Amino acid sequence: MNHRTIFFVSDRTAITAETLGQSLITQFEDINFLSIRLPFIDSVEKAQQAAQRIEQAYVVDQQNPIVFGTLIQDDLREIVSKSTCLYIDFVQTFIGPLEKEFGSPSSHSIGKSHGIRNYQDYTTRIESVNFAIGYDDGINLNGYQKADVILVGVSRSGKTPTCLYLALQFGIRAANYPLTEEDLAHSRLPVELLPYRNKLIGLTIDPEQLAVIRHERRPNSPYASLARCQEEVKMAEKILIREKIPYLNSTNSSIEEMATRIMEQAHLDRRIQRT
Amino acid sequence: MNHRTIFFVSDRTAITAETLGQSLITQFEDINFLSIRLPFIDSVEKAQQAAQRIEQAYVVDQQNPIVFGTLIQDDLREIVSKSTCLYIDFVQTFIGPLEKEFGSPSSHSIGKSHGIRNYQDYTTRIESVNFAIGYDDGINLNGYQKADVILVGVSRSGKTPTCLYLALQFGIRAANYPLTEEDLAHSRLPVELLPYRNKLIGLTIDPEQLAVIRHERRPNSPYASLARCQEEVKMAEKILIREKIPYLNSTNSSIEEMATRIMEQAHLDRRIQRT
Repeated sequence: MNHRTIFFVSDRTAITAETLGQSLITQFEDINFLSIRLPFIDSVEKAQQAAQRIEQAYVVDQQNPIVFGTLIQDDLREIVSKSTCLYIDFVQTFIGPLEKEFGSPSSHSIGKSHGIRNYQDYTTRIESVNFAIGYDDGINLNGYQKADVILVGVSRSGKTPTCLYLALQFGIRAANYPLTEEDLAHSRLPVELLPYRNKLIGLTIDPEQLAVIRHERRPNSPYASLARCQEEVKMAEKILIREKIPYLNSTNSSIEEMATRIMEQAHLDRRIQRT
Repeated sequence: MNHRTIFFVSDRTAITAETLGQSLITQFEDINFLSIRLPFIDSVEKAQQAAQRIEQAYVVDQQNPIVFGTLIQDDLREIVSKSTCLYIDFVQTFIGPLEKEFGSPSSHSIGKSHGIRNYQDYTTRIESVNFAIGYDDGINLNGYQKADVILVGVSRSGKTPTCLYLALQFGIRAANYPLTEEDLAHSRLPVELLPYRNKLIGLTIDPEQLAVIRHERRPNSPYASLARCQEEVKMAEKILIREKIPYLNSTNSSIEEMATRIMEQAHLDRRIQRT
């Protein structure tokens, strides 16, 4: 199998370079990639060290490493991009067309993204994270009026990570409520949720996958049995349908997808400018 | 002030388009941007609707909207990019050079990123999130042997959101322990932490900002007073220095930056392939 070394190089976290770079290389399925993250390349010295590591990879592989870069400063970008590699520039490639379109020069400055903390956004994110933890798993039903959205579903349907992602990525206050055995047996929503019907979004999941996930948590327990999962999912969906609560199936979705679909379904806008 | 409408268009979540697009437009400080996210543009019909919205923005603004796109399918991209706009293509721009470098065609398929769930990665992320919640705020010191890293610092120094980001973005199991008044008064680490010294990373913060953050949580409380914040930070840093625990200052950092610096400091590799 073909092999390539991939570098993600940034003056900040390299998270953007890595996310877009990974999505590009996954379009090439017959190559085996080794990925290396080089964040905080924000000085000439660090840029030279990065260039050295790229050269070393070339010597070992005898093939061009691929370097996905979001370096903003011209001098640092030049040092890194001159090394023996294919330099894919996620910033400079587009700055020219944007400058032309806007008729104004860009600031060429570091730290505009993932950078110097936007204080308002920072506190919004922290408050949203605290909200998600404070209203996780139905532990507290008394603050739901402050929630932007409340996820309901059976245990292990993906509610908690989705709520936390909504908090961190979008600054959204998301609570979650697990449909208990009692709720399912009585085939009704708990009365505490009824005032917040318009904030409810259901999460469901295929019983087979639910059983696999529950087995990892409590191997061979009744809780993880396929029969129990089938029954719970069936009862939960029955409640959601009867109560006309919109719901999403998490089976084949990433956490990012669930969070984005919930933003759409609940007509929510991000509460933070950017991450 | 100049005004522009910005669209982030993707066949999946549009999170990557938005993150990179935002970092590009923040390089243009004298323009007022209105941002619109259009995720899940995965059919001809949806692409046509997206194109209509772009045309409407052009009619209103009488200036080209900027469209940041990560559309992979050729037919969908063509529909959107033909609308009256500056189309900035985060995918196709680089696929050509990569195909040439690799000598092989790309798969042109949707869902390789943020897409069809990678089951192993999904469970790792969920377990890491559960770990961060289960070992948040010193509520449980009995599972620290399973932690990849343990953050220590005074209350509100940024430990919890950083742990959760480490879990969601990198699949890292991060616990956190708040230095209590007792710890600070005795100027020592709790004995329970001593076996895990090599996993400890301190978080500190400027007392002035700490006071602001604490005032939002408990306005005008002794807990939020500048004097108390100054004292706690001083004592905490004294412990960290004496115990030779590496520490970071969160004052001017985003959650992403803190998490990335911790990955570097603790020499951690991501436990998930990608988000």
